[in-house]
Amino acid sequence: MGRIAYVNGQYVRHGDAVVHIEDRGFQFADAVYEVIAVQKGCLIDGDGHFDRLERSLSAIQISLPMSRAALKLVIREVLRQNRITFGAIYLQISRGQAPRDFSFPQGIIPTLVVTAKRIKPFDFNIVSKGVEVISIEDIRWKRCDIKSVSLLAGAMGKTHAVNQGAFEAWQINAEGFVTEGTSSNAWIVTPEGELVTRHLDANILGGITRQTILKLAQEKNLKYVERAFSLQEAQKAREAFTSSTTAFIRPVVKIDGVGIGDGKPGALCLELLKLYGKHMEQAQ
Amino acid sequence: MGRIAYVNGQYVRHGDAVVHIEDRGFQFADAVYEVIAVQKGCLIDGDGHFDRLERSLSAIQISLPMSRAALKLVIREVLRQNRITFGAIYLQISRGQAPRDFSFPQGIIPTLVVTAKRIKPFDFNIVSKGVEVISIEDIRWKRCDIKSVSLLAGAMGKTHAVNQGAFEAWQINAEGFVTEGTSSNAWIVTPEGELVTRHLDANILGGITRQTILKLAQEKNLKYVERAFSLQEAQKAREAFTSSTTAFIRPVVKIDGVGIGDGKPGALCLELLKLYGKHMEQAQ
Repeated sequence: MGRIAYVNGQYVRHGDAVVHIEDRGFQFADAVYEVIAVQKGCLIDGDGHFDRLERSLSAIQISLPMSRAALKLVIREVLRQNRITFGAIYLQISRGQAPRDFSFPQGIIPTLVVTAKRIKPFDFNIVSKGVEVISIEDIRWKRCDIKSVSLLAGAMGKTHAVNQGAFEAWQINAEGFVTEGTSSNAWIVTPEGELVTRHLDANILGGITRQTILKLAQEKNLKYVERAFSLQEAQKAREAFTSSTTAFIRPVVKIDGVGIGDGKPGALCLELLKLYGKHMEQAQ
Repeated sequence: MGRIAYVNGQYVRHGDAVVHIEDRGFQFADAVYEVIAVQKGCLIDGDGHFDRLERSLSAIQISLPMSRAALKLVIREVLRQNRITFGAIYLQISRGQAPRDFSFPQGIIPTLVVTAKRIKPFDFNIVSKGVEVISIEDIRWKRCDIKSVSLLAGAMGKTHAVNQGAFEAWQINAEGFVTEGTSSNAWIVTPEGELVTRHLDANILGGITRQTILKLAQEKNLKYVERAFSLQEAQKAREAFTSSTTAFIRPVVKIDGVGIGDGKPGALCLELLKLYGKHMEQAQ
């Protein structure tokens, strides 16, 4: 059985899954998306993702094309038809199709696409290995809090990282602070043992895994603070790591070639990774 | 006969013109485009548009999927099949279709879409009427010199302008300077009679109509300078106007409600508009 995608009310063969050339997602990046991890058939932090989806849509005045309950049914059906129990759901909503014009057209029907792909089950031994990141200038727009498909800057940055043999690129803003990775949030542990990740504003996307890590830290009474940190502070940190929906938590052992801490995955990062693994096991 | 579009080697009915949901133009705004005006069947400043298209593609490492000569033949055929003598060509090239991943995939075939639409012939009496613009914060990314489809910020800005009853929104950067309109370049004429438009850098798109106006000004020995100007300077200017491929040149008579000059289309703007009309008549 081939892959199946959901596009605008129909379950179609993945190869036949298309949108019109005048879909505003194709011509104007006028669309938002979510990626949701699936473990043992369960959506990880589904409600966090749906909340953020609704915030992104609301920010650019697109209405959710169906209720959250109906959307969950579509996702379940896509998972079922693709027989996926460990994987990721990709969900994109564009403003819809209209004759090309910059301003938002009224009265068109949003385009809804849902796909699923298989991913290897969460394996602590694999994801606990250290990765390297490089730094790049943050050249993105000023509304990175909207999870839009305006991702060309991120794609350029990630390509640069991959070409340098790095796992991710951390973006540095004009003030010298790390905003976030191209598709992940950035974290450090200070020499004093405090967990730090950037505060939320329009310069970063509020990661759902980021939110869960903060919740886990709170439950464990770990010291944490949400504030900006510089590239220099990160390079002098005791630990560093990244978080994202599909890569989970990954210890960062080098930033721009500079070893972090003792050059091995940090203790606090590995503790959080274990807690995150348990959090996913408890998903329903 | 219905509208015909060119998509990846085929001339198809416009309603059937589609791209795959994993086209990187749809999922990452990983695509560039051009719009070319057509008058009496002739492309206006075609080579300027093709030069810029190649610069945009080169900036994000996409190769032109066919030679410039072949592309011109496709455009001619789209115009012929749609029986268009006065109109606009829309041309979009995305990196192509690939399983979703931030970094640029290698070895995929770029997607090429060409459409044409009818537009009323250039009419000096219509386009010489004054329009109003409003100012908005420039929230776009730092590579506006690439004509990418990462246009969500521009679409939001234009929607805001339209909702305010304005023709266009001029974007103001952090230093208080006007960068450009959401889909046009911005011009003023100083009280001393000097023509001013912003210099080219990564903060604005090098407009083809902008380039032609500078050429016409040079041929007529008009005083002009390429430099940044502030919103305040624009509001105190003798004249103001916008330029773009499909709106040509439009006199701006109000900026954020403040009348420009004597509140009527300016003499230099109207002279340039006439020269631009002649330039289009001479197109081959």
